[in-house]
Amino acid sequence: MKIRRSGRLVDMTHYLLLHPYQLVPLTFFSERYRSAKSSISEDLVIIKEQFEQQGIGTILTVPGAAGGVKFISKMSKQEAIKIEEELKQLLAVPERILPGGYLYMTDILGHPKYINQIGRLFASVFSGNQIDVVMTVATKGIPLAYSVASHLNVPVVVVRRDSRVTEGSTVSINYISGSSKRIQTMTLARRSLTAGANVLIIDDFMKAGGTINGMISLLDEFQATLAGIGVFVESEGTEERLVEKYVSMLKLTRVDEKEKRIEIATGNYTDEEEKFLSR
Amino acid sequence: MKIRRSGRLVDMTHYLLLHPYQLVPLTFFSERYRSAKSSISEDLVIIKEQFEQQGIGTILTVPGAAGGVKFISKMSKQEAIKIEEELKQLLAVPERILPGGYLYMTDILGHPKYINQIGRLFASVFSGNQIDVVMTVATKGIPLAYSVASHLNVPVVVVRRDSRVTEGSTVSINYISGSSKRIQTMTLARRSLTAGANVLIIDDFMKAGGTINGMISLLDEFQATLAGIGVFVESEGTEERLVEKYVSMLKLTRVDEKEKRIEIATGNYTDEEEKFLSR
Repeated sequence: MKIRRSGRLVDMTHYLLLHPYQLVPLTFFSERYRSAKSSISEDLVIIKEQFEQQGIGTILTVPGAAGGVKFISKMSKQEAIKIEEELKQLLAVPERILPGGYLYMTDILGHPKYINQIGRLFASVFSGNQIDVVMTVATKGIPLAYSVASHLNVPVVVVRRDSRVTEGSTVSINYISGSSKRIQTMTLARRSLTAGANVLIIDDFMKAGGTINGMISLLDEFQATLAGIGVFVESEGTEERLVEKYVSMLKLTRVDEKEKRIEIATGNYTDEEEKFLSR
Repeated sequence: MKIRRSGRLVDMTHYLLLHPYQLVPLTFFSERYRSAKSSISEDLVIIKEQFEQQGIGTILTVPGAAGGVKFISKMSKQEAIKIEEELKQLLAVPERILPGGYLYMTDILGHPKYINQIGRLFASVFSGNQIDVVMTVATKGIPLAYSVASHLNVPVVVVRRDSRVTEGSTVSINYISGSSKRIQTMTLARRSLTAGANVLIIDDFMKAGGTINGMISLLDEFQATLAGIGVFVESEGTEERLVEKYVSMLKLTRVDEKEKRIEIATGNYTDEEEKFLSR
């Protein structure tokens, strides 16, 4: 069935949003809608313009016989700052203070609205890196890691602190937790990572960075490559940082259990100016 | 800035896809694009038609002063069967057999393509139920539960087998694992569920149903209500089923470790004929 421009625009928008980072040949669309390639090209110009104007992302055109278009999920700096402000307010509530100076964030980390936005922010920041897989550690950061992975259209693998029969054979390492200085174990299913894979590590919280450091050691075991580190909230600690290069969205600068005060600042993601959609 | 129809269609499609189950007043769109409500209504007719034709979902219109439109994420039966067939082939590979007759599914459960599709299938099946929150148990089913939750636009809460300081105070119950008959513990952060909430339980695998039964007991502790149970793969076991009413996508009918044979049948989701998009 031949589909008119208005119908094509709706369906192509849906298709592209659902398949980020995937090269779609123009013939795919022209066959899908029984329309001339020139019409499809015009549709894509309209979609690209809207995507960029509304801060959704951009559409890359790869020329040549093996070419096509590719939707890259991106965010504008302006939207990132808006979300950051909203999250700061949401987090700076005294009721969130937990014993030991931790912050209750489980509600935010399970909420599709926030998780999708934070995921898109990190996908924007790492849009220039070659990434084959997103890695996180169980449990709280999994929805966020999955969100980043789905915006980058790559699988997510989950490192665990225990090992289960349903994972098959596993690789385990011991690492020193940065904050408690205790020896801990982390485990990853052998099948879940191939040698040479470019891995983006995503976590919800980083104090000294011991857990992330453990994941980096695990990458060595799998002969995989670190492609980047993204952390939702980093905590400004007194100890030295075990991880050097990372991108954080927020920075917890002060948690005062006695005075019931929380102070949250902007993370270092704002250094990545050029990674966001300019508009 | 006034935006033309073609631009509006692209942006409205994106907006609706990102905000399922959310009532959007027509004035929101007419102000956003500086367009007459009558034009917006025409746009919505085009979008609704495409969404239904392409098996994306439907758009409900709520009349009256407090009215608006609502996007409901749905799948066509035809697409569900196509995905089911693909997953069956993917799963019925001898290399997936693990000791004890388990199946390695971790790769599928971390892959955005499959997780998004399975999530949309369950969102379609439960689209008629009142659901306030999706619940799952750590670890492997979390991306799937999050996907279902995001298609229903509700938060996801994760039951754990351990408890961590970052969860705050928790409620724990003991339950009997259906397969191993051992006593196990599960824990949920007290803040993560409010009394009276309608809870959809999502899990990746169900054997006798002990774990799901445990989650149901946990709902009682929180005075929450069970709104439905969705399971990606159920295993046809010899023991009696502890859970009565559930929806499964696939059914593992046979795993023969010695002969390296896996047999997978269709789950009972096909009984829910009327819950899918008809086209």
